[in-house]
Amino acid sequence: MAIQLQRPHAAVVFLCFLTCGLSIPDPRQREALMQLEAYMQTGGQMVLTDAEQRLDTLLFKMKQEEMARADFPPSMHFFRARDLIRTSPIFSLLRKMPKGGALHVHDFSMVDAEWLVKNATYRPHCYMCRTDSQSVRFIFSSQRPRALPLCSPWVLLEELRAKTINATELDNSIMRNLTLFTDQDPEAAYPSQDVVWGTFEQTFLALWGLVTYAPVFRDYYYQGLTQFYRDNVMYLELRALLPQVYELDGSTHDRAWTLKTYQDVTRQFTAEHPDFFGTRIIVTINRGVNASVMTKAVEEAMKLKKGFPDFMAGFDMVGREDRGRPLWYFRDALSLPVEEGVTLPFFFHAGETDLEGTDVDQNLLDALLLNTSRIGHGFALLHHPVAKDLSRKRGVAVEVCPISNQVLKLVKDLRNHPAAALMSENHPMVISSDDPAMFGSSGLSYDFYEAFVGFGGIKSHIGSLKQLALNSIRYSSLPSEQQNKAMSEWQRRWNKFVSENDF
Amino acid sequence: MAIQLQRPHAAVVFLCFLTCGLSIPDPRQREALMQLEAYMQTGGQMVLTDAEQRLDTLLFKMKQEEMARADFPPSMHFFRARDLIRTSPIFSLLRKMPKGGALHVHDFSMVDAEWLVKNATYRPHCYMCRTDSQSVRFIFSSQRPRALPLCSPWVLLEELRAKTINATELDNSIMRNLTLFTDQDPEAAYPSQDVVWGTFEQTFLALWGLVTYAPVFRDYYYQGLTQFYRDNVMYLELRALLPQVYELDGSTHDRAWTLKTYQDVTRQFTAEHPDFFGTRIIVTINRGVNASVMTKAVEEAMKLKKGFPDFMAGFDMVGREDRGRPLWYFRDALSLPVEEGVTLPFFFHAGETDLEGTDVDQNLLDALLLNTSRIGHGFALLHHPVAKDLSRKRGVAVEVCPISNQVLKLVKDLRNHPAAALMSENHPMVISSDDPAMFGSSGLSYDFYEAFVGFGGIKSHIGSLKQLALNSIRYSSLPSEQQNKAMSEWQRRWNKFVSENDF
Ligand SMILES: [Zn+2]
Ligand SMILES: [Zn+2]
Repeated sequence: MAIQLQRPHAAVVFLCFLTCGLSIPDPRQREALMQLEAYMQTGGQMVLTDAEQRLDTLLFKMKQEEMARADFPPSMHFFRARDLIRTSPIFSLLRKMPKGGALHVHDFSMVDAEWLVKNATYRPHCYMCRTDSQSVRFIFSSQRPRALPLCSPWVLLEELRAKTINATELDNSIMRNLTLFTDQDPEAAYPSQDVVWGTFEQTFLALWGLVTYAPVFRDYYYQGLTQFYRDNVMYLELRALLPQVYELDGSTHDRAWTLKTYQDVTRQFTAEHPDFFGTRIIVTINRGVNASVMTKAVEEAMKLKKGFPDFMAGFDMVGREDRGRPLWYFRDALSLPVEEGVTLPFFFHAGETDLEGTDVDQNLLDALLLNTSRIGHGFALLHHPVAKDLSRKRGVAVEVCPISNQVLKLVKDLRNHPAAALMSENHPMVISSDDPAMFGSSGLSYDFYEAFVGFGGIKSHIGSLKQLALNSIRYSSLPSEQQNKAMSEWQRRWNKFVSENDF
Repeated sequence: MAIQLQRPHAAVVFLCFLTCGLSIPDPRQREALMQLEAYMQTGGQMVLTDAEQRLDTLLFKMKQEEMARADFPPSMHFFRARDLIRTSPIFSLLRKMPKGGALHVHDFSMVDAEWLVKNATYRPHCYMCRTDSQSVRFIFSSQRPRALPLCSPWVLLEELRAKTINATELDNSIMRNLTLFTDQDPEAAYPSQDVVWGTFEQTFLALWGLVTYAPVFRDYYYQGLTQFYRDNVMYLELRALLPQVYELDGSTHDRAWTLKTYQDVTRQFTAEHPDFFGTRIIVTINRGVNASVMTKAVEEAMKLKKGFPDFMAGFDMVGREDRGRPLWYFRDALSLPVEEGVTLPFFFHAGETDLEGTDVDQNLLDALLLNTSRIGHGFALLHHPVAKDLSRKRGVAVEVCPISNQVLKLVKDLRNHPAAALMSENHPMVISSDDPAMFGSSGLSYDFYEAFVGFGGIKSHIGSLKQLALNSIRYSSLPSEQQNKAMSEWQRRWNKFVSENDF
């Protein structure tokens, strides 16, 4: 529950406590120190309206009941916890809550696998083959496509479905290849980081041929916006690879076309949903490339940023950090924008690792040295007190994606997630969902649930939620004028949400 | 590897970095910030001799090889990792290393289960019964003892063994009841905290009748000292329940007798091993009692402290923190020593929980308000920035017991243990083993391994080990004169260790 604060008093007590020597514990002193701690946490300094306080009382009761359950969802693997979370009254509330923006989401994992199967794969000219490693590949083509190495001959799905007795089983088997989610034992299915990342990469390749087909590409992104919008997310910063999108005749479009298409579909969507604030794109490239490819990518990104100054937010790298090249390896390429006086903000993934003290583990500090605007994940931040201090003092927010970190096996019990400590001291942070469709999640609410119930325990309250939502606007790449606009739109929706739920 | 430090330079760079604005990253600036971080960690400020630096180079190589292994022991459950750790060259070195003191060890779990079976249960007059919950109970008695409720009729082990064909299987089945360790799948055997604590308590009851038998009691403690001594631990602070020890005729001794016995055996042991520095006792009581029982316990503890001013260190509570009463409930009893002007230092277990924001979760702050000398576990410390700050500024060390926290299911992958963050910023801490025999561990080296390899990653080095060992003397309850004596004895042994291993 939110505690009313008396900051200056508590600070004096703290000092006295350090210097005043042995004594019987004083309940007022204790109360003051507890209030100081409550004040320091994320949302601890929010001033709450009466209605917000009523809603908080309700939330507090729900939280107590949630924590008394035999199965505490944040301590369980999300694949097992998902059904429990869905029945949680806190989760229902979080679904309805205006959460602000989702600042760390990837282009190929916005929309659930079911939509892809039911929608994309049922379109005409959709071919599929099965790889030797039990994954699938897709292509849309007006003619029979050339065979892929290490894949079965292409079959036209329309023909396969006509011959198949159990269409549901076929669809389910396709679906299993388009997400990491499984109702099997997740520990057995993914015993190690190597295995889960291996499957992650296969799944990504399976999605590729579906999502990069021009008609699907547009619809997929529109559907992605719809799903986030329905989850009461009003704004998106999308990390996008800008793939070469292809047409039925095999012709392809360049990356500018892809960026333009994102912009067009976003305009269409916001025209149809005026209370959706929009999307900005963070252009990404796989961190497995070499220095000269990176140089070209940065040069292209600078050009794209000039062409789409308001729509493109900046630049980042993707792929498994532990296996890719460290940021410092790319320092020359990444210094180009500053050298040339061109604006290209960075939003680096960094510290998505548990390999302490390695080259990759230096990415957190290097991201800051390279003037990153935010830090993707920052899971290792507690191991780097200098980087942590810099991130705090310069207001470089950490994009925390709890379910992603759990599914990709950085942490098992989310109560041990480093962001729980970061929340205790109101470190700049936002909550995001990374690759929701990959993890069997959607939108932002599941990750908000894990953060609110798992990181916060009983301590986090309505003020924490409010602050996390506000952070997602404050730490967005939006220029300040637009932030103010987004802020007042968010506030309007927040007030509505509170007044509709504070009974 | 230990990095040579340039502190003032790094601090200036840090400030400039905050204020000097956008620029191309400067390798010297980067180097300085990395050095600042290296300087801040546990052991980062140690000045190393040439010989220590040679040993460090060796350790660094070993660490790199260790981290490249497919199975990384600190990320695995200790029951599965133990055999791997035993083959690790780092572990061999840690065994030989003079580790200073073990400051958090409990009386009933010093000696491995095998010793108890092979030694204690083979003594005459040893009766055993099997409880309804598949545990066992023991009693030594000159006559057939009275039946225990919910237990099979007593059998004299001597007679049972005479009738048993497979004595090894009988011994093994007894042994399994005297430790949590199992070579089965530990996740299946202990699926939850409730289950593992349930078995822990049963195991404790199984040990009780063996260890509290006067002749065994003495030998058990002597054997415990031997095992720590052989593991190159020179000093012990033992949390002791001071049970009523019994004789063959059923007569019992009072708690002062038990404390006296510990003192006598310690004197005998140190006489026979002059380079062992000794033991001090922290008298403990189960936290499940009510306020009036606690008052009596504190009064008795004050009396014992007067009677054994040099041998008794202070007072603490034991038992599962989440299920026991919070410290604040006992505040009146725990205020008695200060009120009466009697010295009774506290060494409270606190924060051995993942229930954030509950009454029990206030124990960390309350332990500090009650002027605790150290904090047992402090697992939740990162969730309490005010308590963390107090602990740091007042030099109240955290007693970190990695294997205990993992076996009792607070954390799975030890790289996520909060002490990894605490080590990054040189928070006052010592490494200990809690209940080594219970966890299938022994002495201190296994826990040192987890801390050095798991918490520290590649970053921790010979200086970290040195500091952890020095901390165990500096944060001990020994008066300063004795600390100096212990320190020079430790230094002598350390120099010998380094010179014997720096090739
Ligand atoms: Zn990501
Ligand atoms: Zn303990």
